[in-house]
Amino acid sequence: MSVNLTPTHPGKVYFVGAGIGQLDHLTIAAQSKLRLAEVLIYDALVNTHLLTLVPPNCACLPVGKRGGQPSLQQREINELIVNHCQMGKRVVRLKSGDPFIFGRCFSEIQALMDEGCAYEVVPGLSSALAAPLLAGIPLTDPQLSRCFGVITAHDLTALNWSALSGLDTLVVLMGGRNLSELVNQLLHWGRSPKTPIAIIRWAGHPQQFTWTGRLANIVAQVGTDAVAPSVIIIGDVVELRDKIMGTSDFYHKNL
Amino acid sequence: MSVNLTPTHPGKVYFVGAGIGQLDHLTIAAQSKLRLAEVLIYDALVNTHLLTLVPPNCACLPVGKRGGQPSLQQREINELIVNHCQMGKRVVRLKSGDPFIFGRCFSEIQALMDEGCAYEVVPGLSSALAAPLLAGIPLTDPQLSRCFGVITAHDLTALNWSALSGLDTLVVLMGGRNLSELVNQLLHWGRSPKTPIAIIRWAGHPQQFTWTGRLANIVAQVGTDAVAPSVIIIGDVVELRDKIMGTSDFYHKNL
Repeated sequence: MSVNLTPTHPGKVYFVGAGIGQLDHLTIAAQSKLRLAEVLIYDALVNTHLLTLVPPNCACLPVGKRGGQPSLQQREINELIVNHCQMGKRVVRLKSGDPFIFGRCFSEIQALMDEGCAYEVVPGLSSALAAPLLAGIPLTDPQLSRCFGVITAHDLTALNWSALSGLDTLVVLMGGRNLSELVNQLLHWGRSPKTPIAIIRWAGHPQQFTWTGRLANIVAQVGTDAVAPSVIIIGDVVELRDKIMGTSDFYHKNL
Repeated sequence: MSVNLTPTHPGKVYFVGAGIGQLDHLTIAAQSKLRLAEVLIYDALVNTHLLTLVPPNCACLPVGKRGGQPSLQQREINELIVNHCQMGKRVVRLKSGDPFIFGRCFSEIQALMDEGCAYEVVPGLSSALAAPLLAGIPLTDPQLSRCFGVITAHDLTALNWSALSGLDTLVVLMGGRNLSELVNQLLHWGRSPKTPIAIIRWAGHPQQFTWTGRLANIVAQVGTDAVAPSVIIIGDVVELRDKIMGTSDFYHKNL
Protein backbone atom coordinates (compact mmCIF):
# COMPACT_ATOMS: atom_id res chain seq x y z
CA MET A 1 0.00 0.00 0.00
CA SER A 2 1.23 3.49 -0.83
CA VAL A 3 0.17 6.83 0.60
CA ASN A 4 1.11 9.99 -1.28
CA LEU A 5 -0.13 13.09 0.50
CA THR A 6 0.85 16.53 -0.84
CA PRO A 7 4.51 16.45 0.16
CA THR A 8 6.54 19.65 -0.09
CA HIS A 9 9.63 17.57 -0.83
CA PRO A 10 10.36 14.48 -2.96
CA GLY A 11 11.25 12.23 0.01
CA LYS A 12 9.44 8.97 0.67
CA VAL A 13 9.68 6.30 3.35
CA TYR A 14 9.38 2.60 2.50
CA PHE A 15 8.50 0.26 5.38
CA VAL A 16 9.99 -2.95 4.06
CA GLY A 17 9.54 -6.46 5.46
CA ALA A 18 12.97 -8.09 5.64
CA GLY A 19 11.40 -11.53 5.79
CA ILE A 20 13.10 -14.36 7.61
CA GLY A 21 16.83 -14.87 7.54
CA GLN A 22 18.36 -15.37 4.16
CA LEU A 23 18.38 -13.01 1.16
CA ASP A 24 16.41 -15.39 -1.03
CA HIS A 25 13.36 -15.15 1.25
CA LEU A 26 13.15 -11.43 0.46
CA THR A 27 10.46 -10.41 -2.04
CA ILE A 28 11.40 -8.86 -5.37
CA ALA A 29 9.66 -5.61 -4.31
CA ALA A 30 11.67 -5.47 -1.08
CA GLN A 31 14.91 -6.10 -2.95
CA SER A 32 14.24 -3.29 -5.42
CA LYS A 33 13.45 -0.82 -2.61
CA LEU A 34 16.73 -1.71 -0.88
CA ARG A 35 18.70 -1.29 -4.13
CA LEU A 36 17.45 2.32 -4.43
CA ALA A 37 17.74 3.32 -0.76
CA GLU A 38 19.53 6.55 0.16
CA VAL A 39 19.00 6.03 3.88
CA LEU A 40 18.48 2.64 5.58
CA ILE A 41 17.07 2.54 9.12
CA TYR A 42 17.01 -1.00 10.50
CA ASP A 43 16.23 -3.08 13.57
CA ALA A 44 18.58 -5.38 15.44
CA LEU A 45 17.08 -8.69 14.29
CA VAL A 46 17.53 -7.87 10.60
CA ASN A 47 20.03 -10.15 8.84
CA THR A 48 23.14 -8.08 8.11
CA HIS A 49 23.47 -9.77 4.70
CA LEU A 50 20.54 -7.58 3.62
CA LEU A 51 22.70 -4.50 4.16
CA THR A 52 24.85 -5.56 1.21
CA LEU A 53 21.94 -4.80 -1.15
CA VAL A 54 21.89 -1.03 -0.62
CA PRO A 55 24.05 1.29 -2.78
CA PRO A 56 27.57 2.03 -1.43
CA ASN A 57 26.69 5.64 -0.57
CA CYS A 58 23.51 4.72 1.37
CA ALA A 59 23.56 5.84 5.04
CA CYS A 60 22.93 2.73 7.21
CA LEU A 61 21.49 3.57 10.64
CA PRO A 62 20.82 0.77 13.18
CA VAL A 63 18.12 1.69 15.72
CA GLY A 64 17.02 -1.60 17.27
CA LYS A 65 17.74 -2.72 20.76
CA ARG A 66 19.31 -6.03 21.54
CA GLY A 67 20.55 -7.75 24.65
CA GLY A 68 20.16 -4.74 26.93
CA GLN A 69 22.41 -2.45 24.88
CA PRO A 70 21.31 1.20 24.68
CA SER A 71 19.03 2.04 21.77
CA LEU A 72 16.94 4.93 20.48
CA GLN A 73 13.56 5.74 22.00
CA GLN A 74 10.57 5.35 19.67
CA ARG A 75 10.17 9.17 19.61
CA GLU A 76 13.78 9.52 18.43
CA ILE A 77 13.28 6.88 15.73
CA ASN A 78 10.17 8.73 14.51
CA GLU A 79 12.16 11.98 14.31
CA LEU A 80 15.01 10.30 12.46
CA ILE A 81 12.64 8.90 9.81
CA VAL A 82 10.71 12.16 9.37
CA ASN A 83 13.89 14.27 9.18
CA HIS A 84 15.51 12.14 6.47
CA CYS A 85 12.25 12.09 4.50
CA GLN A 86 11.95 15.88 4.75
CA MET A 87 15.50 16.16 3.42
CA GLY A 88 14.05 14.60 0.26
CA LYS A 89 15.63 11.17 0.71
CA ARG A 90 14.38 7.73 -0.29
CA VAL A 91 14.32 6.13 3.16
CA VAL A 92 13.98 2.38 3.71
CA ARG A 93 12.71 1.46 7.19
CA LEU A 94 13.64 -2.21 7.30
CA LYS A 95 11.68 -4.40 9.76
CA SER A 96 12.38 -8.06 10.41
CA GLY A 97 9.59 -10.36 9.20
CA ASP A 98 6.50 -8.42 8.09
CA PRO A 99 6.08 -4.71 9.00
CA PHE A 100 2.43 -5.15 10.10
CA ILE A 101 2.92 -8.27 12.28
CA PHE A 102 4.11 -7.05 15.68
CA GLY A 103 6.22 -4.49 13.80
CA ARG A 104 5.03 -1.43 15.77
CA CYS A 105 4.92 0.70 12.62
CA PHE A 106 1.81 2.66 13.55
CA SER A 107 3.61 5.30 15.62
CA GLU A 108 6.15 5.84 12.83
CA ILE A 109 3.39 6.08 10.20
CA GLN A 110 1.48 8.60 12.32
CA ALA A 111 4.61 10.76 12.66
CA LEU A 112 4.98 10.73 8.85
CA MET A 113 1.28 11.53 8.30
CA ASP A 114 1.50 14.43 10.77
CA GLU A 115 4.28 15.96 8.65
CA GLY A 116 2.67 15.20 5.29
CA CYS A 117 5.38 12.70 4.31
CA ALA A 118 4.69 10.07 1.63
CA TYR A 119 5.21 6.43 2.50
CA GLU A 120 4.65 2.88 1.33
CA VAL A 121 4.46 -0.48 3.14
CA VAL A 122 6.00 -3.56 1.48
CA PRO A 123 4.99 -6.93 3.01
CA GLY A 124 7.55 -9.57 4.00
CA LEU A 125 7.54 -13.21 5.11
CA SER A 126 6.58 -13.27 8.79
CA SER A 127 8.44 -15.76 10.98
CA ALA A 128 5.00 -16.65 12.44
CA LEU A 129 4.22 -18.53 9.21
CA ALA A 130 7.63 -19.13 7.61
CA ALA A 131 9.43 -20.58 10.67
CA PRO A 132 7.00 -23.51 11.06
CA LEU A 133 7.17 -24.16 7.29
CA LEU A 134 10.98 -24.24 7.33
CA ALA A 135 10.82 -26.73 10.22
CA GLY A 136 8.38 -28.99 8.34
CA ILE A 137 5.24 -28.02 10.29
CA PRO A 138 2.12 -26.89 8.35
CA LEU A 139 0.00 -24.54 10.54
CA THR A 140 -3.18 -25.84 8.95
CA ASP A 141 -4.43 -29.31 8.11
CA PRO A 142 -7.90 -30.46 7.05
CA GLN A 143 -8.11 -32.85 10.02
CA LEU A 144 -5.78 -31.48 12.69
CA SER A 145 -5.92 -27.69 12.40
CA ARG A 146 -8.78 -25.63 10.99
CA CYS A 147 -7.54 -22.47 12.70
CA PHE A 148 -4.37 -21.00 14.13
CA GLY A 149 -3.63 -18.01 16.32
CA VAL A 150 -0.53 -15.85 16.67
CA ILE A 151 0.72 -14.03 19.81
CA THR A 152 3.98 -12.75 21.27
CA ALA A 153 5.16 -13.85 24.69
CA HIS A 154 6.12 -10.33 25.83
CA ASP A 155 3.29 -10.10 28.38
CA LEU A 156 1.55 -13.44 28.69
CA THR A 157 -0.74 -12.31 31.53
CA ALA A 158 -2.37 -9.66 29.32
CA LEU A 159 -3.77 -12.26 26.89
CA ASN A 160 -7.21 -13.91 26.70
CA TRP A 161 -6.19 -17.49 27.52
CA SER A 162 -9.71 -18.84 27.56
CA ALA A 163 -9.84 -18.05 23.81
CA LEU A 164 -6.21 -18.90 22.96
CA SER A 165 -6.27 -22.29 24.69
CA GLY A 166 -9.22 -23.34 22.50
CA LEU A 167 -7.44 -22.84 19.17
CA ASP A 168 -6.24 -25.91 17.26
CA THR A 169 -2.79 -24.40 16.75
CA LEU A 170 -1.02 -21.54 18.54
CA VAL A 171 2.11 -19.73 17.29
CA VAL A 172 4.14 -17.80 19.87
CA LEU A 173 6.73 -15.27 18.73
CA MET A 174 9.60 -14.20 21.00
CA GLY A 175 8.63 -16.97 23.39
CA GLY A 176 12.01 -18.48 24.31
CA ARG A 177 12.54 -16.72 27.61
CA ASN A 178 8.97 -17.29 28.90
CA LEU A 179 8.68 -20.95 27.94
CA SER A 180 7.79 -22.27 31.43
CA GLU A 181 5.20 -19.54 31.97
CA LEU A 182 3.69 -20.26 28.54
CA VAL A 183 3.46 -24.00 29.25
CA ASN A 184 1.90 -23.33 32.66
CA GLN A 185 -0.76 -21.05 31.16
CA LEU A 186 -1.74 -23.66 28.59
CA LEU A 187 -1.94 -26.45 31.20
CA HIS A 188 -3.87 -24.18 33.57
CA TRP A 189 -6.43 -23.48 30.81
CA GLY A 190 -7.03 -27.14 30.16
CA ARG A 191 -4.62 -28.16 27.39
CA SER A 192 -3.46 -31.75 27.82
CA PRO A 193 0.14 -32.31 29.02
CA LYS A 194 0.42 -34.56 25.94
CA THR A 195 -0.15 -31.62 23.54
CA PRO A 196 2.72 -31.54 21.00
CA ILE A 197 4.99 -28.47 21.01
CA ALA A 198 7.93 -27.37 18.83
CA ILE A 199 10.49 -24.65 19.40
CA ILE A 200 12.32 -23.34 16.34
CA ARG A 201 15.42 -21.27 17.09
CA TRP A 202 17.03 -19.02 14.45
CA ALA A 203 14.47 -20.02 11.82
CA GLY A 204 15.67 -19.42 8.27
CA HIS A 205 19.31 -19.03 9.33
CA PRO A 206 22.06 -21.62 8.83
CA GLN A 207 22.01 -22.34 12.59
CA GLN A 208 18.25 -23.14 12.62
CA PHE A 209 17.46 -25.75 15.29
CA THR A 210 14.16 -27.37 16.33
CA TRP A 211 13.14 -29.05 19.57
CA THR A 212 9.93 -31.07 19.66
CA GLY A 213 8.16 -32.56 22.66
CA ARG A 214 4.99 -32.26 24.67
CA LEU A 215 3.79 -29.65 27.13
CA ALA A 216 4.70 -32.08 29.94
CA ASN A 217 8.38 -32.45 28.99
CA ILE A 218 9.50 -29.60 26.70
CA VAL A 219 10.99 -27.45 29.48
CA ALA A 220 13.17 -30.34 30.69
CA GLN A 221 14.10 -31.21 27.10
CA VAL A 222 15.35 -27.71 26.31
CA GLY A 223 17.22 -27.63 29.62
CA THR A 224 19.66 -24.77 29.89
CA ASP A 225 20.08 -24.24 26.12
CA ALA A 226 19.57 -20.71 24.82
CA VAL A 227 16.25 -20.65 22.97
CA ALA A 228 16.12 -17.06 21.62
CA PRO A 229 15.24 -15.89 19.04
CA SER A 230 12.57 -18.52 18.61
CA VAL A 231 9.10 -19.32 17.30
CA ILE A 232 7.00 -21.80 19.29
CA ILE A 233 4.22 -23.94 17.82
CA ILE A 234 1.65 -25.71 20.00
CA GLY A 235 -0.84 -28.22 18.57
CA ASP A 236 -1.25 -31.59 16.88
CA VAL A 237 0.23 -30.31 13.59
CA VAL A 238 3.66 -30.56 15.23
CA GLU A 239 3.36 -34.32 14.81
CA LEU A 240 3.16 -33.94 11.02
CA ARG A 241 6.82 -32.86 11.08
CA ASP A 242 8.13 -36.43 11.29
CA LYS A 243 5.92 -37.51 8.40
CA ILE A 244 6.88 -34.49 6.32
CA MET A 245 10.59 -34.57 7.03
CA GLY A 246 10.81 -38.36 6.90
CA THR A 247 13.11 -40.52 8.94
CA SER A 248 15.83 -40.79 6.32
CA ASP A 249 19.41 -39.88 7.22
CA PHE A 250 19.38 -37.65 4.16
CA TYR A 251 17.44 -34.82 5.72
CA HIS A 252 19.03 -32.39 8.13
CA LYS A 253 17.73 -33.48 11.51
CA ASN A 254 18.32 -30.05 13.03
CA LEU A 255 16.12 -28.09 10.65
CA MET B 1 12.83 -26.93 3.97
CA SER B 2 14.28 -29.57 1.73
CA VAL B 3 13.96 -33.36 1.92
CA ASN B 4 16.35 -35.50 -0.09
CA LEU B 5 15.63 -39.19 0.35
CA THR B 6 17.54 -41.74 -1.71
CA PRO B 7 15.93 -41.05 -5.06
CA THR B 8 16.63 -43.41 -7.93
CA HIS B 9 16.23 -40.52 -10.39
CA PRO B 10 17.35 -36.87 -10.40
CA GLY B 11 13.81 -35.44 -10.26
CA LYS B 12 12.71 -33.06 -7.51
CA VAL B 13 9.44 -31.30 -6.67
CA TYR B 14 9.40 -27.71 -5.40
CA PHE B 15 6.24 -26.62 -3.58
CA VAL B 16 6.43 -22.88 -4.21
CA GLY B 17 4.30 -20.15 -2.61
CA ALA B 18 3.10 -17.84 -5.40
CA GLY B 19 2.38 -15.10 -2.87
CA ILE B 20 -0.37 -12.60 -3.47
CA GLY B 21 -1.11 -11.19 -6.90
CA GLN B 22 1.72 -9.34 -8.56
CA LEU B 23 5.11 -10.66 -9.58
CA ASP B 24 6.99 -8.31 -7.27
CA HIS B 25 5.45 -9.96 -4.18
CA LEU B 26 7.15 -13.23 -5.14
CA THR B 27 10.28 -14.11 -3.17
CA ILE B 28 13.66 -14.34 -4.87
CA ALA B 29 13.78 -18.08 -4.04
CA ALA B 30 10.37 -18.64 -5.64
CA GLN B 31 11.39 -16.70 -8.74
CA SER B 32 14.57 -18.75 -9.18
CA LYS B 33 12.66 -22.06 -8.84
CA LEU B 34 10.18 -20.93 -11.52
CA ARG B 35 13.02 -19.90 -13.86
CA LEU B 36 14.43 -23.44 -13.75
CA ALA B 37 11.14 -25.36 -13.92
CA GLU B 38 10.74 -28.16 -16.46
CA VAL B 39 7.15 -28.89 -15.38
CA LEU B 40 4.81 -26.38 -13.73
CA ILE B 41 1.67 -27.68 -11.97
CA TYR B 42 -0.51 -24.81 -10.75
CA ASP B 43 -3.81 -23.96 -9.07
CA ALA B 44 -6.59 -21.79 -10.46
CA LEU B 45 -6.05 -18.78 -8.18
CA VAL B 46 -2.42 -18.35 -9.24
CA ASN B 47 -1.78 -15.11 -11.16
CA THR B 48 -1.13 -16.05 -14.79
CA HIS B 49 1.65 -13.41 -14.97
CA LEU B 50 3.74 -15.85 -12.95
CA LEU B 51 3.59 -18.32 -15.84
CA THR B 52 5.75 -15.95 -17.88
CA LEU B 53 8.70 -16.70 -15.59
CA VAL B 54 9.16 -20.34 -16.58
CA PRO B 55 11.39 -21.34 -19.54
CA PRO B 56 9.64 -21.54 -22.94
CA ASN B 57 9.87 -25.33 -23.06
CA CYS B 58 8.39 -25.84 -19.58
CA ALA B 59 5.16 -27.92 -19.55
CA CYS B 60 2.46 -25.84 -17.82
CA LEU B 61 -0.33 -27.96 -16.31
CA PRO B 62 -3.31 -26.28 -14.59
CA VAL B 63 -4.99 -28.55 -12.01
CA GLY B 64 -7.11 -26.23 -9.87
CA LYS B 65 -10.84 -26.05 -9.90
CA ARG B 66 -12.69 -22.79 -10.35
CA GLY B 67 -16.31 -21.82 -10.77
CA GLY B 68 -17.64 -25.36 -10.98
CA GLN B 69 -15.52 -26.35 -13.99
CA PRO B 70 -14.22 -29.91 -13.98
CA SER B 71 -10.82 -30.39 -12.34
CA LEU B 72 -8.52 -33.19 -11.32
CA GLN B 73 -9.14 -35.22 -8.18
CA GLN B 74 -6.46 -34.94 -5.48
CA ARG B 75 -5.38 -38.53 -6.20
CA GLU B 76 -4.84 -37.63 -9.86
CA ILE B 77 -2.82 -34.53 -8.92
CA ASN B 78 -0.65 -36.65 -6.63
CA GLU B 79 -0.01 -39.11 -9.47
CA LEU B 80 0.81 -36.30 -11.91
CA ILE B 81 3.42 -34.84 -9.54
CA VAL B 82 4.99 -38.20 -8.69
CA ASN B 83 5.10 -39.30 -12.34
CA HIS B 84 6.86 -36.16 -13.55
CA CYS B 85 9.31 -36.34 -10.68
CA GLN B 86 10.08 -40.00 -11.45
CA MET B 87 10.77 -38.98 -15.06
CA GLY B 88 13.66 -36.99 -13.57
CA LYS B 89 12.08 -33.56 -14.03
CA ARG B 90 12.41 -30.40 -11.94
CA VAL B 91 8.74 -29.95 -11.05
CA VAL B 92 7.36 -26.72 -9.57
CA ARG B 93 4.05 -27.20 -7.72
CA LEU B 94 2.86 -23.59 -7.53
CA LYS B 95 0.33 -22.77 -4.78
CA SER B 96 -1.32 -19.39 -4.32
CA GLY B 97 -0.22 -17.63 -1.11
CA ASP B 98 1.87 -19.87 1.13
CA PRO B 99 2.00 -23.65 0.56
CA PHE B 100 1.53 -24.48 4.27
CA ILE B 101 -1.42 -22.11 4.94
CA PHE B 102 -4.58 -23.93 3.83
CA GLY B 103 -2.52 -25.22 0.88
CA ARG B 104 -3.43 -28.91 1.35
CA CYS B 105 0.12 -30.01 0.47
CA PHE B 106 0.30 -32.84 2.97
CA SER B 107 -1.34 -35.43 0.73
CA GLU B 108 0.98 -34.50 -2.15
CA ILE B 109 4.03 -34.64 0.11
CA GLN B 110 3.00 -38.06 1.43
CA ALA B 111 2.64 -39.36 -2.13
CA LEU B 112 6.18 -38.15 -2.89
CA MET B 113 7.59 -39.64 0.33
CA ASP B 114 5.93 -43.00 -0.45
CA GLU B 115 7.80 -43.10 -3.75
CA GLY B 116 11.10 -41.82 -2.37
CA CYS B 117 10.92 -38.56 -4.34
CA ALA B 118 12.96 -35.54 -3.22
CA TYR B 119 11.11 -32.30 -2.55
CA GLU B 120 11.46 -28.80 -1.11
CA VAL B 121 8.93 -26.28 0.24
CA VAL B 122 9.47 -22.57 -0.51
CA PRO B 123 7.37 -20.15 1.58
CA GLY B 124 5.30 -17.35 0.03
CA LEU B 125 3.34 -14.32 1.22
CA SER B 126 -0.01 -15.56 2.55
CA SER B 127 -3.05 -13.44 1.73
CA ALA B 128 -4.03 -13.89 5.41
CA LEU B 129 -1.28 -11.42 6.34
CA ALA B 130 -0.54 -9.54 3.11
CA ALA B 131 -4.15 -8.64 2.16
CA PRO B 132 -4.79 -6.64 5.35
CA LEU B 133 -1.39 -4.92 4.97
CA LEU B 134 -2.14 -3.92 1.38
CA ALA B 135 -5.49 -2.49 2.56
CA GLY B 136 -3.83 -0.46 5.34
CA ILE B 137 -4.85 -2.72 8.24
CA PRO B 138 -2.16 -3.97 10.68
CA LEU B 139 -3.25 -7.28 12.24
CA THR B 140 -1.50 -6.43 15.49
CA ASP B 141 -1.34 -3.28 17.58
CA PRO B 142 0.03 -2.78 21.12
CA GLN B 143 -3.36 -1.49 22.33
CA LEU B 144 -5.99 -2.96 19.98
CA SER B 145 -4.73 -6.40 18.99
CA ARG B 146 -2.36 -8.61 20.95
CA CYS B 147 -3.43 -11.71 19.04
CA PHE B 148 -5.00 -12.69 15.76
CA GLY B 149 -6.49 -15.90 14.43
CA VAL B 150 -6.83 -17.24 10.90
CA ILE B 151 -9.58 -19.52 9.53
CA THR B 152 -11.26 -20.31 6.22
CA ALA B 153 -15.02 -19.99 5.78
CA HIS B 154 -15.40 -23.33 3.97
CA ASP B 155 -17.25 -25.00 6.84
CA LEU B 156 -18.06 -22.42 9.52
CA THR B 157 -20.06 -24.84 11.66
CA ALA B 158 -17.01 -27.06 12.21
CA LEU B 159 -15.08 -24.33 14.04
CA ASN B 160 -14.67 -23.60 17.76
CA TRP B 161 -16.51 -20.27 17.93
CA SER B 162 -16.26 -19.91 21.67
CA ALA B 163 -12.49 -19.58 21.16
CA LEU B 164 -12.54 -17.66 17.85
CA SER B 165 -15.01 -15.04 19.09
CA GLY B 166 -12.66 -14.16 21.96
CA LEU B 167 -9.69 -13.22 19.75
CA ASP B 168 -8.84 -9.53 19.30
CA THR B 169 -8.63 -9.93 15.52
CA LEU B 170 -9.93 -12.64 13.21
CA VAL B 171 -8.88 -13.18 9.58
CA VAL B 172 -11.22 -15.21 7.37
CA LEU B 173 -9.98 -16.57 4.05
CA MET B 174 -12.40 -17.48 1.26
CA GLY B 175 -15.21 -15.87 3.24
CA GLY B 176 -17.06 -13.90 0.56
CA ARG B 177 -19.86 -16.36 -0.10
CA ASN B 178 -20.57 -17.10 3.57
CA LEU B 179 -20.52 -13.50 4.82
CA SER B 180 -24.02 -13.51 6.43
CA GLU B 181 -23.37 -16.83 8.16
CA LEU B 182 -20.00 -15.55 9.44
CA VAL B 183 -21.57 -12.36 10.81
CA ASN B 184 -24.37 -14.35 12.47
CA GLN B 185 -21.88 -16.69 14.17
CA LEU B 186 -19.91 -13.76 15.59
CA LEU B 187 -23.05 -11.99 16.86
CA HIS B 188 -24.39 -15.27 18.30
CA TRP B 189 -21.12 -15.74 20.22
CA GLY B 190 -21.29 -12.31 21.79
CA ARG B 191 -19.35 -9.99 19.51
CA SER B 192 -20.87 -6.51 19.49
CA PRO B 193 -22.81 -5.44 16.34
CA LYS B 194 -20.48 -2.39 16.40
CA THR B 195 -17.37 -4.55 15.83
CA PRO B 196 -15.47 -3.19 12.81
CA ILE B 197 -15.12 -5.47 9.77
CA ALA B 198 -13.32 -5.11 6.43
CA ILE B 199 -13.65 -7.17 3.25
CA ILE B 200 -10.75 -7.03 0.80
CA ARG B 201 -11.52 -8.39 -2.66
CA TRP B 202 -8.75 -9.30 -5.13
CA ALA B 203 -6.02 -8.25 -2.68
CA GLY B 204 -2.72 -7.48 -4.38
CA HIS B 205 -4.30 -7.24 -7.84
CA PRO B 206 -4.98 -4.01 -9.76
CA GLN B 207 -8.73 -4.45 -9.10
CA GLN B 208 -8.26 -4.66 -5.29
CA PHE B 209 -11.30 -3.19 -3.50
CA THR B 210 -12.08 -2.84 0.21
CA TRP B 211 -15.41 -2.49 2.03
CA THR B 212 -15.39 -1.43 5.68
CA GLY B 213 -18.30 -1.36 8.10
CA ARG B 214 -19.56 -3.01 11.25
CA LEU B 215 -21.03 -6.45 11.90
CA ALA B 216 -24.47 -4.78 12.03
CA ASN B 217 -24.33 -3.26 8.55
CA ILE B 218 -21.64 -4.96 6.42
CA VAL B 219 -24.03 -7.38 4.68
CA ALA B 220 -26.29 -4.52 3.57
CA GLN B 221 -23.26 -2.45 2.56
CA VAL B 222 -21.88 -5.14 0.28
CA GLY B 223 -25.35 -5.70 -1.19
CA THR B 224 -25.33 -7.82 -4.31
CA ASP B 225 -21.71 -7.10 -5.26
CA ALA B 226 -19.50 -10.11 -5.94
CA VAL B 227 -17.10 -10.47 -3.00
CA ALA B 228 -14.90 -13.41 -4.05
CA PRO B 229 -12.00 -13.96 -3.83
CA SER B 230 -11.77 -12.08 -0.58
CA VAL B 231 -10.06 -11.81 2.80
CA ILE B 232 -12.20 -10.63 5.74
CA ILE B 233 -10.82 -8.92 8.85
CA ILE B 234 -12.86 -8.55 12.04
CA GLY B 235 -11.68 -6.42 14.98
CA ASP B 236 -10.82 -2.92 16.16
CA VAL B 237 -7.64 -2.80 14.03
CA VAL B 238 -9.90 -2.20 11.01
CA GLU B 239 -10.39 1.34 12.34
CA LEU B 240 -6.65 2.04 12.01
CA ARG B 241 -7.11 1.93 8.24
CA ASP B 242 -8.45 5.50 8.04
CA LYS B 243 -5.55 6.78 10.15
CA ILE B 244 -3.00 4.83 8.14
CA MET B 245 -4.38 5.63 4.71
CA GLY B 246 -5.22 9.26 5.56
CA THR B 247 -8.16 11.21 4.25
CA SER B 248 -6.26 12.91 1.45
CA ASP B 249 -7.59 12.70 -2.09
CA PHE B 250 -4.13 11.58 -3.11
CA TYR B 251 -4.50 8.03 -1.91
CA HIS B 252 -6.40 5.43 -3.83
CA LYS B 253 -9.67 5.08 -1.92
CA ASN B 254 -10.35 1.64 -3.34
CA LEU B 255 -7.20 0.00 -2.06
